[in-house]
Amino acid sequence: MPSFTVFKGHESGVPKQSTTIKPDQLTGDNVLIRVTASGLCGTDLHYKGTDMVLGHEGVGIVETVGPACHSLKRGDHVGWGYEVDSCGHCIECLQGTEIFCPDRAMYGTSNLDQGSFASHAIWRESFLYPIPKGLSDIDAAPLQCGGATTFSALQGIKPSDTVGVMGVGGLGHLAIQFAAKMGCHVVVLSGSERKKAEALQLGAHEFIATKDAKKLEVSSPINRLLVTAAVPPDWELILPIMAPQSAIYPLSVSSGNLEIPYMGLILQGISVQGSLVAPRHLHHKMLDFAAQHQIKPVVETFPMTEQGIKEAMDRLERGEITYRAVLIPE
Amino acid sequence: MPSFTVFKGHESGVPKQSTTIKPDQLTGDNVLIRVTASGLCGTDLHYKGTDMVLGHEGVGIVETVGPACHSLKRGDHVGWGYEVDSCGHCIECLQGTEIFCPDRAMYGTSNLDQGSFASHAIWRESFLYPIPKGLSDIDAAPLQCGGATTFSALQGIKPSDTVGVMGVGGLGHLAIQFAAKMGCHVVVLSGSERKKAEALQLGAHEFIATKDAKKLEVSSPINRLLVTAAVPPDWELILPIMAPQSAIYPLSVSSGNLEIPYMGLILQGISVQGSLVAPRHLHHKMLDFAAQHQIKPVVETFPMTEQGIKEAMDRLERGEITYRAVLIPE
Repeated sequence: MPSFTVFKGHESGVPKQSTTIKPDQLTGDNVLIRVTASGLCGTDLHYKGTDMVLGHEGVGIVETVGPACHSLKRGDHVGWGYEVDSCGHCIECLQGTEIFCPDRAMYGTSNLDQGSFASHAIWRESFLYPIPKGLSDIDAAPLQCGGATTFSALQGIKPSDTVGVMGVGGLGHLAIQFAAKMGCHVVVLSGSERKKAEALQLGAHEFIATKDAKKLEVSSPINRLLVTAAVPPDWELILPIMAPQSAIYPLSVSSGNLEIPYMGLILQGISVQGSLVAPRHLHHKMLDFAAQHQIKPVVETFPMTEQGIKEAMDRLERGEITYRAVLIPE
Repeated sequence: MPSFTVFKGHESGVPKQSTTIKPDQLTGDNVLIRVTASGLCGTDLHYKGTDMVLGHEGVGIVETVGPACHSLKRGDHVGWGYEVDSCGHCIECLQGTEIFCPDRAMYGTSNLDQGSFASHAIWRESFLYPIPKGLSDIDAAPLQCGGATTFSALQGIKPSDTVGVMGVGGLGHLAIQFAAKMGCHVVVLSGSERKKAEALQLGAHEFIATKDAKKLEVSSPINRLLVTAAVPPDWELILPIMAPQSAIYPLSVSSGNLEIPYMGLILQGISVQGSLVAPRHLHHKMLDFAAQHQIKPVVETFPMTEQGIKEAMDRLERGEITYRAVLIPE
């Protein structure tokens, strides 16, 4: 029986190579893709001990399309992300916010036998995104989750707004680029001065090192703050540089509680907005925007092997990746 | 020298009668009002030990207007609330959200010598709100803060939305009425069944007693939750009945931290929105909406004397007021 290579989480905490059955014939709107690149996201680390195929920043080339497909064809470059399926008829689906569909299937919500740490994947056509011209497969891979997450958190922003990006890493370095190209004034907050030159190079207008600071100063108060750092912000420092009626987006997935002073929120009319990747219509727009403005991740590549995956994951856990690891099938 | 009676916070924690000088001639756009009614708000309790005139839910009758006044005249019924002054030229003022003006003066932000626990007050014309026909002074008083706070927290709501109101008290009983008259489906969450009949009478469509509940059930998920209860919600109970992309408004002023699970916010795209009374344009609309729909507080009246104020405050602290205390000058 035909099969292809996948890499699954394993109880040892070290992902293992395995195989998934490849059907002789695709059904419905399924598409068989040969993977050419996969980003490694912090979320993947949460599932490295789970028996599921890893990876949700996939890019590849269409090999075969099922009988119900109507837009993709063999040879197309496509990407896919967090979302696997949604019901299609609930209010959330109908209004184009299917990432909040109560019956959605997403990376991590079920033990998937498909993913982007693989030689191939079978995915529904309507959850695949054509890669626009001007983006390589390697550049496009980290956009499938990291790009979608940051672009989505910048929705509704005005070009005249000041955007704060806390943390310069996989998400932060994309957020800086998106916000700068949207016309915003971009303030980066980072622990030390270490990443200052790179942040400015990516498009930031101001850089603030927060470590040991007693008080922060910005040239204009922050209208929207994207928190991409692993450690929670010190609100005593941050709230005074937030604008009235501004919004805070905690993007780092964390299992704990958000703790923030009530009075800071109330007196300044600040909101804390939960946000999760992007619904599909935004995902398409994100890729187009990235291609148009040549927004590209800064990547380090690793071979898509047991050893390559382990090394990339270990380095990501130690915060040593600049700024996104991409796995390349051999 | 002429003077009038005021009631100030006192270090003993029991407000004391005092006097404020009444100038012979009003200057600028100042207006002298004879107070006819003042609501007692939870916020007043925070200042009962502070040397300032108390009260920020004032209603009265204009006695004299200063030379720069252009719309009010002797005999007009007017109300005033939390706001005393704002700069008039910052971005917040210019966009009609002057309650977030960095140079605003508000109740509690300075030791005021004017307030609504008084026989009279001198207030700037542009921070006074004419009371529309159909609202008595007593009914209008609690709207000046409690009404403004709840109406403001309902801005942007859609008539097809489900509004949750947690807590049936000074704020909650107004929120129920506003939301119901806006066409929303109103779900009240309260500790026990005690206030069920009254909540339904005020316009609620569903009533849920949360005490000892292991799981809550609503007929439709809540799009916006106004938290008016004194104790923080149990998020384990509440988050599962919130709709995707819904908003939580903590309206009870509290000095502690908001604590809420990160993953609950992120996976459902929920926001927590700080909100504070209403800017002036909304305050006018709130009074008009209340008059049009006959939204009236349920009040208990007390004489505006040292003893009356103490009794009202004591009862409010014990949670015994149904639902808003109003002080009436003798």
